[in-house]
Amino acid sequence: MRAVAPYVPGEQPGADRQVVKLNTNENPYPPSARVLAALGAQLDDRLRLYPDPEARGLRARASALYGVPAESIMVGNGSDELLTLLVRAVVDPGARVAYPVPTYSLYDTLVALQGGESVPVPFPADWSLPAALADTGAALTLLCNPNSPSGTLVPTAAIDALARQVRGVLVVDEAYVDFADEHALGLVGRRDNVVVLRTLSKSFSLAGLRIGLAFGHPELLAGLRTVKDSYNVNRLTLAAAEAALADVEDMRANVARVRATRGWLTEALRALGYDVPPSHANFVLARRAGVDQGPVVRALAAAGVLVRHFATPQLADALRITVGTDAEIDALLDALRAVP
Amino acid sequence: MRAVAPYVPGEQPGADRQVVKLNTNENPYPPSARVLAALGAQLDDRLRLYPDPEARGLRARASALYGVPAESIMVGNGSDELLTLLVRAVVDPGARVAYPVPTYSLYDTLVALQGGESVPVPFPADWSLPAALADTGAALTLLCNPNSPSGTLVPTAAIDALARQVRGVLVVDEAYVDFADEHALGLVGRRDNVVVLRTLSKSFSLAGLRIGLAFGHPELLAGLRTVKDSYNVNRLTLAAAEAALADVEDMRANVARVRATRGWLTEALRALGYDVPPSHANFVLARRAGVDQGPVVRALAAAGVLVRHFATPQLADALRITVGTDAEIDALLDALRAVP
Repeated sequence: MRAVAPYVPGEQPGADRQVVKLNTNENPYPPSARVLAALGAQLDDRLRLYPDPEARGLRARASALYGVPAESIMVGNGSDELLTLLVRAVVDPGARVAYPVPTYSLYDTLVALQGGESVPVPFPADWSLPAALADTGAALTLLCNPNSPSGTLVPTAAIDALARQVRGVLVVDEAYVDFADEHALGLVGRRDNVVVLRTLSKSFSLAGLRIGLAFGHPELLAGLRTVKDSYNVNRLTLAAAEAALADVEDMRANVARVRATRGWLTEALRALGYDVPPSHANFVLARRAGVDQGPVVRALAAAGVLVRHFATPQLADALRITVGTDAEIDALLDALRAVP
Repeated sequence: MRAVAPYVPGEQPGADRQVVKLNTNENPYPPSARVLAALGAQLDDRLRLYPDPEARGLRARASALYGVPAESIMVGNGSDELLTLLVRAVVDPGARVAYPVPTYSLYDTLVALQGGESVPVPFPADWSLPAALADTGAALTLLCNPNSPSGTLVPTAAIDALARQVRGVLVVDEAYVDFADEHALGLVGRRDNVVVLRTLSKSFSLAGLRIGLAFGHPELLAGLRTVKDSYNVNRLTLAAAEAALADVEDMRANVARVRATRGWLTEALRALGYDVPPSHANFVLARRAGVDQGPVVRALAAAGVLVRHFATPQLADALRITVGTDAEIDALLDALRAVP
């Protein structure tokens, strides 16, 4: 284990520190009032009982909302757990796992922990799907879409073509897709090798509760169930997730606000000289080619504004900025303009 | 994955079914009122934020309660997750994992999933520590203590001797130890190869929330942290666990009630002709040598009383019965006496 570099999450400041927190892609708006009510209704002595290991209630609700049969749905302790289970279930030691880069750096860690071989395929400058991704022969291909940290989106038609071309399983990690205009859920049921992952952390404002959903062929999900802990998702999280999916209108209203802010944030950053690819997520990547943004990130932090910086050669000249409220983005831009 | 037999948890009936549930070792008494209050205080828009990936508040509380430094404590999504992380971090493919049997059958599944080699060492008839366990050369030795399904306890002195004898890591799975008279936490800090696992599911009446604690050498825990998902335990669970550990008197009062019921349940089962080893847990193993208890379990279920039966040659003649309330145990005994 010592040889594996762990995934390093963004800073989570203590409750005592007042900051504008734009570093881990949390939603700036609260979850639905129905979620809080559903949680309140669970606070009794049923907590002494194990949760449903099959999450039947939540899967039925997700089935009704997304139009996917319940037997093609699995629930995880965040989509991070579902990614872990997928890598453990599909990747034998030495097997190849391909993904376009730069992307969610957890993929590197999970493949290394499993003793697999990472096959990183660079995105072209326009962040379109790299053609070479179809020919890796990998047992598992991972596509974060919209991608982090770029925010860019690969069209569903291109994903469908990729699913037909790859040899193994194709996972479409749609953690941010509710902020985009299209998604790949329609491939589930048509392509047996496709798994689509969702999370309630971002669009549903529930990062604190850890809920992920996997959509895929029942036989593929059966392999994941063999690996998962029986009681992987607790009672309160199951109840909250059911309530969240029952109030999707509330989520969509928050998404609309984030998208509006994302639009003017993108323009403002471009006016400041940053290159910003069009974002379909709840964050933007702001790049100043060849100019290390480490000092900028530290100056912003000193001014009370946290953004994400990746200290890799490929991304050192970029900031990843979560779309906060309008007031938070005003504060960010003020702080950014004040950086010497 | 198809070759691995998944762990099969006990039945979790739907809320609509009224049963006396004595099959999965849940506590019959409710969690502390302070836990419910702490959860209620968390139901606001902080749910949109990720939890603390290092669980600093809970680890500080556990450190104060158990007298173990916070850097020697790690928090898991139930002790099942901590067992999974231990096997993944310590066991290379083909490495040996030893444990006395019969015991918690999840161990078989976890070792098989990791591609390790299980070395089951049979308990002697008196359920004392098998001497051969010290000489397996295993990378990992697992000791469920008190053991499930027997409820029996290996004294701490014998565990200390085992820790000095084994070559690799020794995990003492103390899921049920709050119902016993001694524990092995004192070995942490003295034996660098010992990890002690606890859960709040049983004694603290919080099976619905999934909280496990691991106590061990900081370097050993660092290996586990490399494997774990960053945000493995959600905000509500962290808050509930902190409150539970702050009200240990409430837990102890419930434990005293369970132990009192366990005493007369044991006598009543013996009067019915069952062999019952002395239990140090919140369940008892009732055995009728050579008489398959499958029909008895089905007759009890038909009468609305769920107990656990293991369909293995070694355990087919036994029932594992969770210690419920006095009224629940009265109902169990009435149903058992009515079995033809």
